[in-house]
Amino acid sequence: MSKFKGVVPPVVTPLKADLTVDYASYTRVLEHLIEAGCHGLFVLGSTSEVVFHDEKTRQEIIEHSAKVINGRVPLIVGVIDPTTDRVINHAEIAKAAGADAVVVTAPFYTVTSQSEILDHFRYIRDAVDVPLIAYDIPVCVHVKLQRQTTVTLAREGAIIGVKDSSGDDGNFRYLLLDLADRKDIFLMTGSEIVVDNALLMGAHGVVPGIANVDPHGYVRLWNAAQRGDWVAARKEQERLCRLFEIVWVAQGRVSGGASGIGAFKAAMKSLGIIDTALMPRPRAALNDAETGKINDILRATGLLA
Amino acid sequence: MSKFKGVVPPVVTPLKADLTVDYASYTRVLEHLIEAGCHGLFVLGSTSEVVFHDEKTRQEIIEHSAKVINGRVPLIVGVIDPTTDRVINHAEIAKAAGADAVVVTAPFYTVTSQSEILDHFRYIRDAVDVPLIAYDIPVCVHVKLQRQTTVTLAREGAIIGVKDSSGDDGNFRYLLLDLADRKDIFLMTGSEIVVDNALLMGAHGVVPGIANVDPHGYVRLWNAAQRGDWVAARKEQERLCRLFEIVWVAQGRVSGGASGIGAFKAAMKSLGIIDTALMPRPRAALNDAETGKINDILRATGLLA
Amino acid sequence: MSKFKGVVPPVVTPLKADLTVDYASYTRVLEHLIEAGCHGLFVLGSTSEVVFHDEKTRQEIIEHSAKVINGRVPLIVGVIDPTTDRVINHAEIAKAAGADAVVVTAPFYTVTSQSEILDHFRYIRDAVDVPLIAYDIPVCVHVKLQRQTTVTLAREGAIIGVKDSSGDDGNFRYLLLDLADRKDIFLMTGSEIVVDNALLMGAHGVVPGIANVDPHGYVRLWNAAQRGDWVAARKEQERLCRLFEIVWVAQGRVSGGASGIGAFKAAMKSLGIIDTALMPRPRAALNDAETGKINDILRATGLLA
Amino acid sequence: MSKFKGVVPPVVTPLKADLTVDYASYTRVLEHLIEAGCHGLFVLGSTSEVVFHDEKTRQEIIEHSAKVINGRVPLIVGVIDPTTDRVINHAEIAKAAGADAVVVTAPFYTVTSQSEILDHFRYIRDAVDVPLIAYDIPVCVHVKLQRQTTVTLAREGAIIGVKDSSGDDGNFRYLLLDLADRKDIFLMTGSEIVVDNALLMGAHGVVPGIANVDPHGYVRLWNAAQRGDWVAARKEQERLCRLFEIVWVAQGRVSGGASGIGAFKAAMKSLGIIDTALMPRPRAALNDAETGKINDILRATGLLA
Repeated sequence: MSKFKGVVPPVVTPLKADLTVDYASYTRVLEHLIEAGCHGLFVLGSTSEVVFHDEKTRQEIIEHSAKVINGRVPLIVGVIDPTTDRVINHAEIAKAAGADAVVVTAPFYTVTSQSEILDHFRYIRDAVDVPLIAYDIPVCVHVKLQRQTTVTLAREGAIIGVKDSSGDDGNFRYLLLDLADRKDIFLMTGSEIVVDNALLMGAHGVVPGIANVDPHGYVRLWNAAQRGDWVAARKEQERLCRLFEIVWVAQGRVSGGASGIGAFKAAMKSLGIIDTALMPRPRAALNDAETGKINDILRATGLLA
Repeated sequence: MSKFKGVVPPVVTPLKADLTVDYASYTRVLEHLIEAGCHGLFVLGSTSEVVFHDEKTRQEIIEHSAKVINGRVPLIVGVIDPTTDRVINHAEIAKAAGADAVVVTAPFYTVTSQSEILDHFRYIRDAVDVPLIAYDIPVCVHVKLQRQTTVTLAREGAIIGVKDSSGDDGNFRYLLLDLADRKDIFLMTGSEIVVDNALLMGAHGVVPGIANVDPHGYVRLWNAAQRGDWVAARKEQERLCRLFEIVWVAQGRVSGGASGIGAFKAAMKSLGIIDTALMPRPRAALNDAETGKINDILRATGLLA
Repeated sequence: MSKFKGVVPPVVTPLKADLTVDYASYTRVLEHLIEAGCHGLFVLGSTSEVVFHDEKTRQEIIEHSAKVINGRVPLIVGVIDPTTDRVINHAEIAKAAGADAVVVTAPFYTVTSQSEILDHFRYIRDAVDVPLIAYDIPVCVHVKLQRQTTVTLAREGAIIGVKDSSGDDGNFRYLLLDLADRKDIFLMTGSEIVVDNALLMGAHGVVPGIANVDPHGYVRLWNAAQRGDWVAARKEQERLCRLFEIVWVAQGRVSGGASGIGAFKAAMKSLGIIDTALMPRPRAALNDAETGKINDILRATGLLA
Repeated sequence: MSKFKGVVPPVVTPLKADLTVDYASYTRVLEHLIEAGCHGLFVLGSTSEVVFHDEKTRQEIIEHSAKVINGRVPLIVGVIDPTTDRVINHAEIAKAAGADAVVVTAPFYTVTSQSEILDHFRYIRDAVDVPLIAYDIPVCVHVKLQRQTTVTLAREGAIIGVKDSSGDDGNFRYLLLDLADRKDIFLMTGSEIVVDNALLMGAHGVVPGIANVDPHGYVRLWNAAQRGDWVAARKEQERLCRLFEIVWVAQGRVSGGASGIGAFKAAMKSLGIIDTALMPRPRAALNDAETGKINDILRATGLLA
């Protein structure tokens, strides 16, 4: 059986006024998520703004996370960079710093192919003795991990799981079917507004960015699904869908990336979890008017008085 | 007047059997290009496979290039990484190592916007005192530098030029028209099969990857255009178009990235310029059958006896 | 309350050897679907290969369908052509020929916008007194009906429902939430491999192309969902997912369009429902080897002895 | 030798207040273009808004065009519809109504393939005895005619030429090279802002939409290129590029299609060539403010006093 399961939020990385990591706030984020009952934590993913951080900062974030988590839940670490050997370097650091598994995307910036993606994962697996989870995120890397690629890697033992942020729920279902005999494989969806669906299909885990704002909601949704109460699962998901609308508040004024994660940060600041809603350069933070609209949504979904 | 002009090849990075940089071969590439009359050299670009190299290797490549070039032609250096502060770090290293200008793409992996791209270039320009050239390469970063973005950056003094690898020759023409009054701005095309066209439109420079294989051809083409002999320019370009077909020989078997640069390397090895045609992981090198077809093309275009 | 609901297959159009419509087979398809318990029929959609048929043939198909159906279930008719007035013409014919509602896409071939799409539906609604269903099918028309566009049209009374073939299940969920107060609006999904999910979200209907091959399966799935038996719904859906794999058997050899609908036709011929598996020009029909593989899948999913 | 060459504008279709064709204005457009020295006319193309017209109107437009042109220049007719047999029907009508050649796109709305595109052209060629010109317009049909597809069709005798509106000037150059031995093949570019480039590459014809507004400019450009005066060709093209900016004046407010052709019509009305600038539904016409900006551009480029 896989040691990974359940609600595994991708952890937001709060910043100080000088745009370095605010570890005091970060600790509060980690505690907030663990106390809510999350089953694992995914640090240095896209929601963590991993590609904005240099090697040294990434190492500090992993070490800090490992220290705070202290084995209470598994620590999954994104090792995101364009090419194989750079990823291997990150994976070695992550392993040494306490990662239970690392999350690897397809190569990016380069024009790649499924065959090259297969080799990418194999080379990394051969180089570093740490479990690999494939990260399917075409919106960032501009290539889809095709069903056959993922299944091949799983059957070869190159990967122990998948984080599917492709939005292709049909393909995710086929992964679940194709690997139904493999209890050691861990398939997670990143589609945070159809988590009830993913669980009905048999997903082993969910990685909702908005769980940084409302981890209790996703834990309740998970628990409802585990006991087969799909009506309750749907109802919880629908409330979370209304909450998720915060990600579009700044749409148009700032970039898509800044709009979404900026909204998470603005909401977490309003909720007192983190001290600033600052974003790494060149991303712009949300403004007061946008934060006001986000607070309205927090109130409407029961998170703010 | 801009100090940059003419044929500025993006320099291929040859590798040794252990996949580290083969500096002996690399020196020969640089000399080959300078002796052919190239007017500048662009190292650590996409053709140089920059995103496969870590920070330390990049620094060595710049320092080695600066030493070999020794001021004979300008040294332009790619500082390619996903986000602003990581690029600033590369730019500082590049400046210290002898770059005359650095080449910067839009952010990648992140979902960005034109407004964020503007800030990206401004932050970098403010942080490092080295001339910036904007690199418009949507095939890698999946966003186009829009005309207004580029013109704004040029008018603000944030950039001194553009390397346009977007394939959008109409947009490139509008850049030339919009900035026709600015003799200090340097606009280069990366569209290596329509260089005669770009020069007819008034382009200040060309950055043809295939010039690694046949720099003399592009220098002849440049010279023909300078003297207004468009018939000769076209004829030279047409021969180079036939040569350029090497990039499709391995298409389908290997990735698009590996097929193109792998073909450059295979041809350069056949011509005795470099010792191996190896590619960085996870890219596969071309095989013997493919190299044979490339040699046929080299013979048909007069480069191989 | 909407008069439309449930399983509404898009009906395949069988052809004779001369590539005209095989009405004898077509009648059998209609009877096969009605007898299985389908709740409505959608003719002249993408699965019906509507854009291959001229105006006269379309009229005959509608009239034939209306005669065979004879009021037993609602008859929904696709009126698919690039621009407003051509669609109005089809809609008038469809209404006269017995359509209970017509299905309208965004304009295509032309480069359109959401504002133009709004006007497109409004002009059609004003011109013809027949209920309109919006057809969201970006894979064919290359534009998405955005959430706000669809909701606006529904609130204005321009449309009475949506057939969502966009694959964007998150957006579909927001439509369900945004229009939850409107019992007269009919929201159907075309995502045939996640129908259990769509029903859990509250979808009012499903339009599965593969229901031409196995309508009983989708009716069982619908019934399981109606009684809240999500485990049974999922199990039925998983079998149908295995059946759905017939659409990829000819992938690569023929076009994507021909591979999918060609597979439906090949399976229906194997099952004795239609006489030929011929495709309209320029589509190629599946070959014997491909049909053999399809028969294997029919056997594995319990449809063929 | 091909009977086709030179400047072949795609003719705008003016409308009356009731949105039917304004044949009085249309006649003036045709005369305006012929008198300016255009070498052929292309009616019922994308610029003619062909897909907005039904079969009967299309026939009238062709017959009217043939009557007005009266053999003075070749008449090329677009036969644009999604699928093979519908195109054959249009082609038969076009031939009977006086077309010298017909222009055919790849299938659209359907998900097609290069193999299917080959068959599409072959079936049409076999069915109708009229010369076919392939229309490469991915922005409308969402598939590119690949180099090998086009060359195969030309070598087979299925097509006598190409209208390339793909914007891929590198690919267009390879067509010119691949078919350089075939004097009976007619290769035209639709890239109206790089016509000097296309002619330097050896293009046989150009199809500039904006030539509806300024045919004299394109005729001068053509003549300059014929006598090898590339400096004059470039200078004329640069003025036409400034004129072409009218197509972006309404960008954002109306659709991309309406913005471009709407600008042509607004300019032609300002110049007294046509009576209204109305657009077919659902396209919106340009407003007074936009027309004012267009008039400014007409004045700046010497077309309006």
